Amino acid sequence: MHSPDILYYLETIGIIAFALSGMIAARKANMDPVGIFTIAFVTALGGGTLRDVILDNHPVYWIRHEEMPILILVMAILFTCCRPISRLRESNIVLPDAIGLGIFSMLGAQFTLNLGYSWFIASLLGVITGTFGGALRDTLCSEVPFIFRKDQIYASISFAGCWLYFVCRWATENNTLALAIGLLFIVAARLLAVHFDIRLQRDANPHG
Amino acid sequence: MHSPDILYYLETIGIIAFALSGMIAARKANMDPVGIFTIAFVTALGGGTLRDVILDNHPVYWIRHEEMPILILVMAILFTCCRPISRLRESNIVLPDAIGLGIFSMLGAQFTLNLGYSWFIASLLGVITGTFGGALRDTLCSEVPFIFRKDQIYASISFAGCWLYFVCRWATENNTLALAIGLLFIVAARLLAVHFDIRLQRDANPHG
Amino acid sequence: MHSPDILYYLETIGIIAFALSGMIAARKANMDPVGIFTIAFVTALGGGTLRDVILDNHPVYWIRHEEMPILILVMAILFTCCRPISRLRESNIVLPDAIGLGIFSMLGAQFTLNLGYSWFIASLLGVITGTFGGALRDTLCSEVPFIFRKDQIYASISFAGCWLYFVCRWATENNTLALAIGLLFIVAARLLAVHFDIRLQRDANPHG
Repeated sequence: MHSPDILYYLETIGIIAFALSGMIAARKANMDPVGIFTIAFVTALGGGTLRDVILDNHPVYWIRHEEMPILILVMAILFTCCRPISRLRESNIVLPDAIGLGIFSMLGAQFTLNLGYSWFIASLLGVITGTFGGALRDTLCSEVPFIFRKDQIYASISFAGCWLYFVCRWATENNTLALAIGLLFIVAARLLAVHFDIRLQRDANPHG
Repeated sequence: MHSPDILYYLETIGIIAFALSGMIAARKANMDPVGIFTIAFVTALGGGTLRDVILDNHPVYWIRHEEMPILILVMAILFTCCRPISRLRESNIVLPDAIGLGIFSMLGAQFTLNLGYSWFIASLLGVITGTFGGALRDTLCSEVPFIFRKDQIYASISFAGCWLYFVCRWATENNTLALAIGLLFIVAARLLAVHFDIRLQRDANPHG
Repeated sequence: MHSPDILYYLETIGIIAFALSGMIAARKANMDPVGIFTIAFVTALGGGTLRDVILDNHPVYWIRHEEMPILILVMAILFTCCRPISRLRESNIVLPDAIGLGIFSMLGAQFTLNLGYSWFIASLLGVITGTFGGALRDTLCSEVPFIFRKDQIYASISFAGCWLYFVCRWATENNTLALAIGLLFIVAARLLAVHFDIRLQRDANPHG
């Protein structure tokens, strides 16, 4: 009874986090309110939609849970109208983005595992679910079609977090605890990677 | 008996309109005959394919109705060979594009509504069906990956048209009349928006 | 009994060929090991995934055959570690790419034909299966979002090869022989087209 509730709240938090990251990116790209809603929608629901289409899990998540696109719509209206929220700057994208990456990687991996597939297939779908929304957001919002260096560190951390979740789930036989460990690892590693990444890129591309 | 026929003819007109807009865009991008067919195919059938994949409606429209890709092939051959048709210029893209947007928004919205989903979900799928083909066309044909300002006005008009259709259908209980009203609204609003848009962009980006 | 085996080996060779082309392209774009795996994965499995999603053939190929993503992972590790393999240069991309195009066009066309669809629909799905992985690779690896001139010649050769396969299959009633003829035609035509193409582009765009 309680496990589905936890997953539902996790997915909701992940959608809020990714929608927020999408709205910040859209604002930075000077988009109007409709553009802000579109990017928030695509970022928050893109990964889950691709997961559901690949795994033939119909109806897809946001059609089954109509409250999710409504939530994103309300967020976009608030973001457009409320001065304090819309003052969020580009640097504020890192935390919601890391939370979204962590939650969707975990949800994609667990969902695939529960269908009876192997750890390897589950980790691939965890990475796809976690990264696709952010990749769409970056492609639509920036001049560079795909901020690829950033995406690679995304993918590596998501992949490692999925395997950490599998090992913890196998060792402790406690799915919720294992989810929490994998999620915290991804968020922490991503926050650390952002700082490390900046320096790495400076070293590698001194003129970039 | 008659209602499916009307929908079939509407979808055919929408496919012809979007295919024509794709061929004009491909010609402008200096593509060869195969490129012209490819862009026409992707523009005319992209939105419906994404709708069918998201709603798990198989086989997808153009596989169920084989005559549609054949029609696009014949159009591409005519467009390549007939001087008068191929003389269509870039400015002639606006009308077929508006007709395609209107028809596919209406068809996507009605199809989703008939599956029993809410007005909100139906309007989202109307927008997705109406805009995805044109977004693919613009991404593949232009140097800018996504003409986003244009797409936003696209999306807003499509969204408003879907809700106008829902209200008219609910008020008049006449689906065909409501479809016609929503369709006419989208085409008219889009044609007006193109002129308004040009000025708006000039004001917002004086150096763009 | 033997026919499925031949198809399985063919698909494996096609995946190896496309994965290799992806790794060469990712190396040229200065990607790290995770990026090399990602591009190899997307190039080798993208076309088949789109085919399976459009035709509602679930689970998709690489989920049903888990050994394929593992094979790509091993290839990416070898490519990163082994000096002789990683010395492959950009010009070495042409042969694996042509083999991948030929194999996936044939497999997509035959699979669709065996579902009972017409030659025309089967040839369209052959082209989609054969070209989508390479299109994703080029979009993600190059500055130009879509190397379109190249893709057109891709598509034309793939389309012609599919029809050659259909005619040979109809004339000889020997599916394996027809597959071999179609495959050899695509690989040979593609290798010839690369040389021809270079000259054609120079003539058409003297300043390009």
